[in-house]
Amino acid sequence: MYLATFKIGDKEDWGLVRPEVGLICPAKVWVGQNAPATLLDFIRLSADDKKLLSYEPPLPNEQWLAIDEVELIAPIPRPVRNIFCVGKNYMDHIEEMNKDISGLNIQYPQYFTKATHTVTGPFADVPLHSDVTAQVDYEAELAVIIGKEGINIPEDKAMDYVFGYTIINDVTARDLQQNHSQWFKGKSLDGFCPMGPWIVTRDEIIHPVELNISSWVNGELRQRSNTRHMIFSIPKLISILSQGLTLEPGDILATGTPAGVGMGFDPPRVLKSGDVVRIEVEKIGYIENRFVE
Amino acid sequence: MYLATFKIGDKEDWGLVRPEVGLICPAKVWVGQNAPATLLDFIRLSADDKKLLSYEPPLPNEQWLAIDEVELIAPIPRPVRNIFCVGKNYMDHIEEMNKDISGLNIQYPQYFTKATHTVTGPFADVPLHSDVTAQVDYEAELAVIIGKEGINIPEDKAMDYVFGYTIINDVTARDLQQNHSQWFKGKSLDGFCPMGPWIVTRDEIIHPVELNISSWVNGELRQRSNTRHMIFSIPKLISILSQGLTLEPGDILATGTPAGVGMGFDPPRVLKSGDVVRIEVEKIGYIENRFVE
Repeated sequence: MYLATFKIGDKEDWGLVRPEVGLICPAKVWVGQNAPATLLDFIRLSADDKKLLSYEPPLPNEQWLAIDEVELIAPIPRPVRNIFCVGKNYMDHIEEMNKDISGLNIQYPQYFTKATHTVTGPFADVPLHSDVTAQVDYEAELAVIIGKEGINIPEDKAMDYVFGYTIINDVTARDLQQNHSQWFKGKSLDGFCPMGPWIVTRDEIIHPVELNISSWVNGELRQRSNTRHMIFSIPKLISILSQGLTLEPGDILATGTPAGVGMGFDPPRVLKSGDVVRIEVEKIGYIENRFVE
Repeated sequence: MYLATFKIGDKEDWGLVRPEVGLICPAKVWVGQNAPATLLDFIRLSADDKKLLSYEPPLPNEQWLAIDEVELIAPIPRPVRNIFCVGKNYMDHIEEMNKDISGLNIQYPQYFTKATHTVTGPFADVPLHSDVTAQVDYEAELAVIIGKEGINIPEDKAMDYVFGYTIINDVTARDLQQNHSQWFKGKSLDGFCPMGPWIVTRDEIIHPVELNISSWVNGELRQRSNTRHMIFSIPKLISILSQGLTLEPGDILATGTPAGVGMGFDPPRVLKSGDVVRIEVEKIGYIENRFVE
């Protein structure tokens, strides 16, 4: 299933997407009048009520909406806590960011978080915050949506805790990331986490997850890799993160970015006003955001 | 005002505390039947409705409760996002943690976060998670509660955004903190943020905030300092954090710990089962937590 949150005018709704025909079935048409109010609520409730995941969509009718007619927003526009992220999860990205990787320890994933106000739509404008940073950069990432509460999750059970997948751009202020030493501040400016265009449920994607992931700036290819090149696999990332730390339905875990970010160029290439960053992940779709003053 | 969240049996409530007489006035007695459901709601609503902050408590009567009869829990037991924290904000703590501080950059605060499930009560037992970490340590900290939404807050206006203060223990798994490089993971195990015993509103404490802060393990004094020794003052911490990042009512910002943590000893002294950590901050009170397997 493809599940999206969208706006028509000021009204927010969510529903089931059929990308191949460009249509969305609103939740109330699909699940019925008692449909959960938000996609986040649906994810939470479906952890205990598997029936929610088995609703068959009716055939497209006049109650379905054309995707073109709505504004897709982030599937979870208001996460209940910070976005979990992991740094340095593709070797080629580590190499581009660190001239000397001889002493590098990649035994442990480097988890950090992005503040909740970073979340923005898959096609929204992203503010450059040029009064605060001069080095805004993009990072194409596959994100995992957690579907079930758990702590100390064994690696071989970790996939049971995955609700689905989406795309995020882990936008980063490189100067702040470096100055503040801990990455949180440079990762957490408002609007710095475009997300979407929808959540693709786990059953749609064969495990292990081997999806092409790419990014372009103004049409120029910058990143091209495959999620099979992650150093820590999705089950490993979930299992290690959950050690002593309870995950809950609706949690979002971004899985790291491959080589090709602006900071990896010599000299570095920072985003400027008007630049458009497109990120595509196979089987999911793409997000595309303009960066503005 | 002193504002606490508490439980009687399974029922959660909040109210106004009179510590000197050991009594709590439940919110519905103080504000009336339309009292906000939680202290967090009260903080949010009081940002727009100053009247909420001006209610006079009635004289203690039979509707007040003895503090001894209730279970004080964290004033904000379910924060809406991660706890903001800052590392390395007292020079003596930096010295104890880094044998060589010659190259140290303290131009920028090192912000990081603790996951929401870390929050626990001021007198709750804290799990040692000994299957995950062998180096649990304490950090006595003053925390600021944000009272009003804001972004790019100037330093000279920052105090307007403070709702009040509380105490936290920024419990840390030192081995995870070091292994994972970014501090989030080692700071974020369930129960690793005892908080309370209540929130003291801004007006109760003279600015600049110069409060004695101390901690004891099993009655042995470990930390003793004063918040005047912070490298980045409270207004600076708020101002810099808010650059490009919207703060909202109910946000919690821990302001760093002074010297005397277990890791600063040679050899390091880690917490073990049965250890009791007490943290006291002048004008606020104390929290005291037993660490257990």
